[in-house]
Amino acid sequence: MLSSDQLTALDSLLVDLNHASAEVILPYFRKEHGLEDKGGAMGFDPVTLADKGAEAEIRRILAQRFPEHGVIGEEYGEDRPDAEFVWVLDPIDGTRAFIAGLPVWTTLISLRYQGRPVLGSIGQPYVGEIFMGHAQGSRVLTRQGSQVLKVRPCADLGQAIIASTDPTAYFDPREQIAWNKVRAASKLARLGCDAYAYAMVAAGTIDLVVESQACKAWDIEVAVPLMAGAGGVVTNWSGEEIGSQGGQIVMAGDRACLDQALVSLRDYAV
Amino acid sequence: MLSSDQLTALDSLLVDLNHASAEVILPYFRKEHGLEDKGGAMGFDPVTLADKGAEAEIRRILAQRFPEHGVIGEEYGEDRPDAEFVWVLDPIDGTRAFIAGLPVWTTLISLRYQGRPVLGSIGQPYVGEIFMGHAQGSRVLTRQGSQVLKVRPCADLGQAIIASTDPTAYFDPREQIAWNKVRAASKLARLGCDAYAYAMVAAGTIDLVVESQACKAWDIEVAVPLMAGAGGVVTNWSGEEIGSQGGQIVMAGDRACLDQALVSLRDYAV
Repeated sequence: MLSSDQLTALDSLLVDLNHASAEVILPYFRKEHGLEDKGGAMGFDPVTLADKGAEAEIRRILAQRFPEHGVIGEEYGEDRPDAEFVWVLDPIDGTRAFIAGLPVWTTLISLRYQGRPVLGSIGQPYVGEIFMGHAQGSRVLTRQGSQVLKVRPCADLGQAIIASTDPTAYFDPREQIAWNKVRAASKLARLGCDAYAYAMVAAGTIDLVVESQACKAWDIEVAVPLMAGAGGVVTNWSGEEIGSQGGQIVMAGDRACLDQALVSLRDYAV
Repeated sequence: MLSSDQLTALDSLLVDLNHASAEVILPYFRKEHGLEDKGGAMGFDPVTLADKGAEAEIRRILAQRFPEHGVIGEEYGEDRPDAEFVWVLDPIDGTRAFIAGLPVWTTLISLRYQGRPVLGSIGQPYVGEIFMGHAQGSRVLTRQGSQVLKVRPCADLGQAIIASTDPTAYFDPREQIAWNKVRAASKLARLGCDAYAYAMVAAGTIDLVVESQACKAWDIEVAVPLMAGAGGVVTNWSGEEIGSQGGQIVMAGDRACLDQALVSLRDYAV
């Protein structure tokens, strides 16, 4: 386990990494951003100079501070992925939101210690927010200061606000059946949020988030420490701890709500 | 037609109304907000103390400044709807986003002169933005200052980023067919934005927005002056000027893109 002193130092580094990344990204937001299509099986897969520049900058700082740490990032692959400490980076989660000018893309930075995610941040620098956490607590830094993040109780899926980014595009046909069942059982569904929705679970304004096997490690690992510190829970669609390769994920502020969603999701777990 | 002096005075009032409304709304954002369900045919229809308080405050200021003007609002109905000047208000467009804590709800204020929308604003006070416009120009006020809003060219729907809030929930089965055709012909679709997407068309980061007959006048009229000033175009699904009762709407930065969407939408116009 990491000591409090280690966590404090790493927390401070997380904030620095978010600010450094923001300086690279913001000049491209709603401006010319050098859009390219990475293509692939999912069809259109956008990447911009902002994604690449921000990940390069975060890697540069990490290499100076902790040359022995590993790094896994969406844009520049893996370095020392089996190190004791491994940083997992998605410089712009929600690149589609980014290119559409919407303020719900985020910068995801998380840290694995001995294989498990222990610390992470979800940053939205245009709005001016960093949601961050570890097992000893989660908080959000805003223009107004720092506030504790705490999930809310919601023991009944029928009263839950749920979220998923775009089931039509990202879920395979079987996963869409599962999503439709969970959505039908919920009170209200919100779409289009990417990882911003995880932050809202931590903040106690969304109750449950479901994403599909299309998720990579850098899309989801940040949720583990954020939920740990805010009192929520994250599993795969079988109700187990998520693995290191990404995949289907469900998170909730209330374990009872997650268990009700799993009744529908388990049958479609891969 | 309104004179430049009239427009300047009204612009200034729009900013004041946005600030007054924001002061009512922001203390409720991500806090206890007195959620009620207005129910109705569409199922869950949330309203909060923020919606009601903000509309009451805007109405109070308008009654002081222009007691002869009409007002139509989502929460408090119609006063003098046939007056020469009529304000059309949606204090929180995207109440579902608001209660989920997402920063894409907006305050919509528009002004009809002799029956036609001539001036309007889309405000997102948590982010700190007011997108506003009239036929002489549109602009956005941010924490960084004021910037001109200008649509971008996109003559090919196949290259377009399009948006709609939630076709599964808000479109009837025939409208969903139309949406699916337009989505299939586009490059990328974004969901969950409500009127924030209109602002992104004006800003040149989204190319086309489609919404259904579920829209009321206060959901859509603001798009008319905003597009007029930013160089875009707004019609109903028949390609005609939108009426005063709301309904199906499509807007685009480029007329050619809108025309291509209308090929699919016209058959499903009501």
